[in-house]
Amino acid sequence: MIQIAVLGYGTVGSGVVEVINRNQESINKKAGEEINIKYVLDLRDFPGDPVQEKIVHDYEVIANDPEIKIVVEVMGGTNPAYTFVKRALESGKSVCTSNKELVAKHGVELIRIAKEKNCNFLFEASCGGGIPIIRPLNCSLTADEVDEISGILNGTTNYILSKMTSDGSEFEDVLKNAQELGYAERNPAADIEGWDACRKIAILSSLAYGHHVDFEEIYTEGITKITSADIRYAKAFGATIKLLASSKRIGDKYYAMVCPVMINGDSPLFSVNDVFNAIVIHGNMLGDAMFYGSGAGKLPTASAVVADVVDAAKHLNRFIMTGWSSEKLEMIDVSQVESRFFVRMKGSYTESLAKVEEVFGTIDAKVVAEVGKEFGFITSKMKEEEYRAKAAQFDNIIGMIRVRF
Amino acid sequence: MIQIAVLGYGTVGSGVVEVINRNQESINKKAGEEINIKYVLDLRDFPGDPVQEKIVHDYEVIANDPEIKIVVEVMGGTNPAYTFVKRALESGKSVCTSNKELVAKHGVELIRIAKEKNCNFLFEASCGGGIPIIRPLNCSLTADEVDEISGILNGTTNYILSKMTSDGSEFEDVLKNAQELGYAERNPAADIEGWDACRKIAILSSLAYGHHVDFEEIYTEGITKITSADIRYAKAFGATIKLLASSKRIGDKYYAMVCPVMINGDSPLFSVNDVFNAIVIHGNMLGDAMFYGSGAGKLPTASAVVADVVDAAKHLNRFIMTGWSSEKLEMIDVSQVESRFFVRMKGSYTESLAKVEEVFGTIDAKVVAEVGKEFGFITSKMKEEEYRAKAAQFDNIIGMIRVRF
Repeated sequence: MIQIAVLGYGTVGSGVVEVINRNQESINKKAGEEINIKYVLDLRDFPGDPVQEKIVHDYEVIANDPEIKIVVEVMGGTNPAYTFVKRALESGKSVCTSNKELVAKHGVELIRIAKEKNCNFLFEASCGGGIPIIRPLNCSLTADEVDEISGILNGTTNYILSKMTSDGSEFEDVLKNAQELGYAERNPAADIEGWDACRKIAILSSLAYGHHVDFEEIYTEGITKITSADIRYAKAFGATIKLLASSKRIGDKYYAMVCPVMINGDSPLFSVNDVFNAIVIHGNMLGDAMFYGSGAGKLPTASAVVADVVDAAKHLNRFIMTGWSSEKLEMIDVSQVESRFFVRMKGSYTESLAKVEEVFGTIDAKVVAEVGKEFGFITSKMKEEEYRAKAAQFDNIIGMIRVRF
Repeated sequence: MIQIAVLGYGTVGSGVVEVINRNQESINKKAGEEINIKYVLDLRDFPGDPVQEKIVHDYEVIANDPEIKIVVEVMGGTNPAYTFVKRALESGKSVCTSNKELVAKHGVELIRIAKEKNCNFLFEASCGGGIPIIRPLNCSLTADEVDEISGILNGTTNYILSKMTSDGSEFEDVLKNAQELGYAERNPAADIEGWDACRKIAILSSLAYGHHVDFEEIYTEGITKITSADIRYAKAFGATIKLLASSKRIGDKYYAMVCPVMINGDSPLFSVNDVFNAIVIHGNMLGDAMFYGSGAGKLPTASAVVADVVDAAKHLNRFIMTGWSSEKLEMIDVSQVESRFFVRMKGSYTESLAKVEEVFGTIDAKVVAEVGKEFGFITSKMKEEEYRAKAAQFDNIIGMIRVRF
């Protein structure tokens, strides 16, 4: 029997207990041994809930119990999660976590400790919720050199953009509706400003390229400025707007960024809607592979955490993650990244055309609002710095969205 | 250094050599040891090709060389592949194969031998080409009980159906075109009759449900009867036609079938086009997860085979596949499977309506050809046997396609 402890009985923590209880028989069979939850750490009590008899309020009980081989950290935040996880690993207990802040900030150190102590630090649920992506990157795509990752990594923003697209509604209204439905937090900044997706692309990129990507150095732009007019322009170009978290190799260097992007039907991400997430990985031999599923939610996320528990149980005393070097990945500045740009301008298309084409070259413009009031067009491919220099020659630009087609 | 032998220098075999050469450094790093191709078995010689110095014509050389730890079987067919693979495993050499016929027919025995001999029989490339699906099923979805699999598992048929949908062309013309482009074999029966997809869903279902699924017992219907008119009806219902290989748990039993199916935009498989493949796995905790990518092709398939080689190298003398029991999965007959049915009838819609609604209940009919000549409708949900009994009351049915929405 393998004794485990769960830190935190919130949404994911109670999901972990539920998954282990409901699929007990098949999980034990796959793990090769019975998995038993000995402790659940939470500040609260849960009278009447069968979990109550396992509740402890003091981490010392878990840290000092040599029977505990695997610690499940689903508290979120970096403190005290970092202290608890580090201590567990240092005493040779494996840790499975869904905590993206913890992995993005301390992953490289925690993997190193796990390696030294011959145990494991696993974090499948930290990116893409229930979607298997960390383990495929670590174990399946080993014949390839990954050179590009693009993902819809945040369910809240994808739900908001999908609703704006299907209903023609405005950002603020959909956000309010999403908050009422529980799809968005009361303080939605981490989602809508792109910070959540930023941490996830930092983790995926570090793992795929083998060097540390600091999430604080990733250019991050949220979806708060996207309007129903932008969505109408996207439709007029046969496209849709998604919050993409992406990274790519350019020569020997890489870039990573999170921003709203127009994509069309050529991208498999085009039809990923609502709260679903998906990640496209490009390998130099494999081409594109996409992993799609529920990016959040109690049971899908718990399913990924428990799959880590099974893996940890199968590999007690055997380090299995490839991990990444603490050396930083060499990044290029976002100003050097090439793309096409969708530009919205105030004023009359016919009156502005001459100057626009003088600066940007021949364009294909669309008008989706009142004629004479504003128009939108997509530039040819150029570096961000080149776009900025050209855009500076206009005082009537009211919006820009990067284009990937 | 780990010495390996490649059996067969055809499309996939030469791809395996190319992948190992091109990504040598990163592959060796991930395997933890240098991987060296010592022999390539082929009846032919390849003068001028650097592979020539590794070519052997006699399997005895490989079988009797104790240095060879991993054998890559990419010859296809069951003979002599089965004999060669069995002999390798019995002497403790791990085997990585892309051979779906071999796995569907002898997988359960070969996995058992690998387990007994503490080596591995790995077959990631046998289903979905380069898409990681076998390893995720074996290692990632371990917290879930899989209760449904639906996949587009054959690139040739998906290419044909996609072309028929985009161009409005007929099956025979697209097939001819696909043969010219090399997307279809000169003898295309294995693809267009669904036999290839049938073997793949047998393998995936055996692995996911833990009991043997005999591919010969799977109801299999190809795409040869699909016409441009069917495609037009599908469009009129907001749907598309795909060759789906699927299996599902119903109570304690399961069904598996391969047949053309109408799906709509609610399915993530709806927009999987051209030669791409995708597999949707439903777990009781996870919900739907989809794996998408190149289902065939030299380098994608070779990438999956080499990922198996890396895994085998990391786990010499340690059996890692969960495998499945030789006990047969309890199947229900296809006559008991429920779905909706798209029915095409000759004659005038208005004249036939009374009888159709008397037998099938209220319907939503579409006419996409000449009015009065034929029409199509979708029934409510019923068992196949119930549909057959109702359909037997008509002598003007000219086509039926199952509907999943």
